[in-house]
Amino acid sequence: MTFAEITADPATGALPSAHRRARETVEQARLADEAGLDLFAVGEHHRTDFVGSAPAVVLAAAAEATTDIRLTSAVTVLSSDDPVRVWEQFATLDQLSGGRAEIIAGRGSYTESFPLFGYDLADYADLFREKLDLLLRIRAQNPITWNGRLRPALDAADVGPRAMQEELPIWVGVGGSPASAISTGRLGLPMAMALLLGPITSHRQTVDLYREAAQDAGHDAAKLRTSINLHGYVGRTSQGARDTMYPYFAEGMMANNHQRGRGFRMPRAAFQAQTSPDAGLVVGSPQEVVEKLLAYHELYGLDRALIQIGFGGMPQDDVLKAIELLGTEVAPVVRREVGSRKEPAA
Amino acid sequence: MTFAEITADPATGALPSAHRRARETVEQARLADEAGLDLFAVGEHHRTDFVGSAPAVVLAAAAEATTDIRLTSAVTVLSSDDPVRVWEQFATLDQLSGGRAEIIAGRGSYTESFPLFGYDLADYADLFREKLDLLLRIRAQNPITWNGRLRPALDAADVGPRAMQEELPIWVGVGGSPASAISTGRLGLPMAMALLLGPITSHRQTVDLYREAAQDAGHDAAKLRTSINLHGYVGRTSQGARDTMYPYFAEGMMANNHQRGRGFRMPRAAFQAQTSPDAGLVVGSPQEVVEKLLAYHELYGLDRALIQIGFGGMPQDDVLKAIELLGTEVAPVVRREVGSRKEPAA
Repeated sequence: MTFAEITADPATGALPSAHRRARETVEQARLADEAGLDLFAVGEHHRTDFVGSAPAVVLAAAAEATTDIRLTSAVTVLSSDDPVRVWEQFATLDQLSGGRAEIIAGRGSYTESFPLFGYDLADYADLFREKLDLLLRIRAQNPITWNGRLRPALDAADVGPRAMQEELPIWVGVGGSPASAISTGRLGLPMAMALLLGPITSHRQTVDLYREAAQDAGHDAAKLRTSINLHGYVGRTSQGARDTMYPYFAEGMMANNHQRGRGFRMPRAAFQAQTSPDAGLVVGSPQEVVEKLLAYHELYGLDRALIQIGFGGMPQDDVLKAIELLGTEVAPVVRREVGSRKEPAA
Repeated sequence: MTFAEITADPATGALPSAHRRARETVEQARLADEAGLDLFAVGEHHRTDFVGSAPAVVLAAAAEATTDIRLTSAVTVLSSDDPVRVWEQFATLDQLSGGRAEIIAGRGSYTESFPLFGYDLADYADLFREKLDLLLRIRAQNPITWNGRLRPALDAADVGPRAMQEELPIWVGVGGSPASAISTGRLGLPMAMALLLGPITSHRQTVDLYREAAQDAGHDAAKLRTSINLHGYVGRTSQGARDTMYPYFAEGMMANNHQRGRGFRMPRAAFQAQTSPDAGLVVGSPQEVVEKLLAYHELYGLDRALIQIGFGGMPQDDVLKAIELLGTEVAPVVRREVGSRKEPAA
């Protein structure tokens, strides 16, 4: 997956153009599809150092460049968007792509979209709850009548197009807040966790709370699905993968992490520690990445993993090499080990 | 251009699927590009009998399927949208397509989007004026600080991505209201007229008012640009073109025109009258269509014409035949006659 962020090359200081980042994103999707990966994701950010303010537009270009890979936002910042527009865009993507669209609906870990669209961060929780409710209702029925506090009411509104898939997948992005895990479980929706840094066990409570809440609400445990978003890189060798990833990842943590000016320095030793078997980053040789993904699966019973490759302005050639290895040497092994349909994805 | 509407085949009663209409739209763009046409347009409608609620998403797929043709909305219903989102989507399209995106901003001749997004039709004029103002400011400067009545204020907001083109073209769609022509002229913006039925001279006043207003406001007359949106069809013969177009156009007028239930019956004789040299429809043999387009140009000094082909559910094969003829036998002649760069477009 990608956020299509625009970061200065740590070696040269050069900034790639937005055009180049846009084209690189489509090429990454094309290769991920050819390499047999299952899912391509584009993040959402509203600032000029990302080409990510309109994920469905980027994904529509990716759809046209691919044939099999599924296409998702990661995440759609639903709290500051209009569920009607989100549905219209992703249902259109679904029709264009022959039923390959998905949405991961999230609250957004960056907050720049709230002032941009006139929302109050004080409504953070209510906005998401209400808008997710509307999005799910639009998916379930048409025409739709709906009333809420934070979005104009709908009176027998005809919201089109409908999706091509019988049920366009809507996942809920959960950063780690217990309340989010519980509310997602109550709704019986698939949960997309994110784990950037820290122990790989960080989400144990998240998953437990999610499953308990789902069970309490009467949802079939066998139908629950979970995924995890990770940062990573696959290279031919353990050391080579780390050497390739480190300078860009460190630059991204400094330049593109959350609000501008809130980045932090990541020394090589700290990065190295985060690549150990019990820490979050998925980086190394194909074998090492397989083992880390299986460890994650063992812990959480995941249905899929999304790996963000190249954060921090990694050159396209290096990103493509990792996508290729992920598709040809990692995914087939993980799929075989985990069973027939518990797929990892890029 | 297309509205990707879903209309029952008047012969068989069969409704095409939204997926088929979405794919057909992309294929029309691909052929229009190959045939050398200059512009491909997608309309915006918010109901399940169109695949047109997210034009930028459809155009992004079309961008990926084409190399040279320019891509525009026709129109973006700006009054009921958020200029920040519109900019984000079309600037992303511009970056993806290598600088081929355009916007025709309009008030919308259908009104279904107003209740859908919680707008009051009483604000019809103010909404458009204010939102066009914001859209133009976003194009001109970043970051942007802005205050208005009908959209939350922006305080040094960073709206990205920026466009790839130095100035992403923003046209204003004008149906024929004198006030709209005058306000567009005052702003010195390119004006996109629409003429469905009636005398080809219908827009004389529109153009005069537009040019006068522009001149009064001090805009360079040589830099003003105008276009016209027409319904039409090109066939090998005059009679054949009319025979092909009529049943679908009549069905479209009945089923898809404005609010549901407000369609009207168009007898063949009435249609026939609208295809005469002094009436609006552009239908006939290539030679006949060339002559009609030149007549329009003579009247209005147009910079381009957009022809909507296939309204009312015309089968894709018939639409593609017309696009091919338009690109190979109509456009080259019109371009030659009018001068080097006064191009018609599909």
